[in-house]
Amino acid sequence: MTSLRRVQRVLGIDPGLTRCGVGVVDVAPDRSAVLVHVGVVRSSPDAAIETRLATIAAGIRAVIDEHDPHVIAVERVFSQHNRHSVMGTAQASGVALLVAGERGIPAATHTPTEVKAAITGYGAADKRQVQQMVARVLRLDSLPTPADAADALALALCHAWRGAGPSAAPTGALTPAQRAWADAERVSRR
Amino acid sequence: MTSLRRVQRVLGIDPGLTRCGVGVVDVAPDRSAVLVHVGVVRSSPDAAIETRLATIAAGIRAVIDEHDPHVIAVERVFSQHNRHSVMGTAQASGVALLVAGERGIPAATHTPTEVKAAITGYGAADKRQVQQMVARVLRLDSLPTPADAADALALALCHAWRGAGPSAAPTGALTPAQRAWADAERVSRR
Repeated sequence: MTSLRRVQRVLGIDPGLTRCGVGVVDVAPDRSAVLVHVGVVRSSPDAAIETRLATIAAGIRAVIDEHDPHVIAVERVFSQHNRHSVMGTAQASGVALLVAGERGIPAATHTPTEVKAAITGYGAADKRQVQQMVARVLRLDSLPTPADAADALALALCHAWRGAGPSAAPTGALTPAQRAWADAERVSRR
Repeated sequence: MTSLRRVQRVLGIDPGLTRCGVGVVDVAPDRSAVLVHVGVVRSSPDAAIETRLATIAAGIRAVIDEHDPHVIAVERVFSQHNRHSVMGTAQASGVALLVAGERGIPAATHTPTEVKAAITGYGAADKRQVQQMVARVLRLDSLPTPADAADALALALCHAWRGAGPSAAPTGALTPAQRAWADAERVSRR
């Protein structure tokens, strides 16, 4: 597993329909990190939902094309949070994970509590504490804005610092090739 | 609007990760309908979420490629239903809508109550009543199975019978070209 000894490039995605945060960091084995890219993919609330999701997908694919991440970390969405907008957030997270799957890039999901704990050492930290720590770690002159962009960077750092193992599925620790093989074997046994 | 006078081909999608129902019907202006295709796109619960969503997307695209629907109707997911699996269902619905958007096919969402009311005339009808009516309308010898497949056909019929207007967004009644134009205009005004 020499890959664990090298710099890991992580794309963090804070899913959302109106603002989808995207942040790319390079994280060295000593946990030091460098900012590669940070931004927000936006879609118009006036557009049809299928158009909005296509805009989000295109924006994420553009970031992947430009920065070629090794892994994609997406915030895990819970149904109890922000009930009004949670379905749109869940749909955007599905699109983010789909894009990863179609590109053969391993994906992982992390809960907001996991992110806060990984970044600040404290799972109940407030958003501003997380943003300040992200800015310090990446040696940024100012806090990343909007919050969705900062959250995406925090997710990416969280993923790298928690270890390379994706948390989304039992087979998450496999490489894409291993997964495809495992899937094919499973189907052939039916 | 001569298109309203012609047979409308509708792809109905009952979103799900393990079983995603897909049903295609041709509906004439006199509301009579013919079954074109019905099936289920499955993904393994053991696979990683990004792989599952890619499998669902590929299955939906294959149905579109083969049957060339005019419109895609997707069940609207609510956060209060089936809390345990609702996030996966919402992610699958996001993928279904994304595929529609990327193909330039108008999409619409309908609630389960709207579907029941459209098919049986009674919004609190049970699933079996809906399935029996779908089988009768499409002159099928037996009830479509699994339930996800029957639900997809019911969604497609509901969409055609309720009228062509998508319900997902304020601009839903526009054609894809009109929507793109409206989006471009909106961006240029910022």
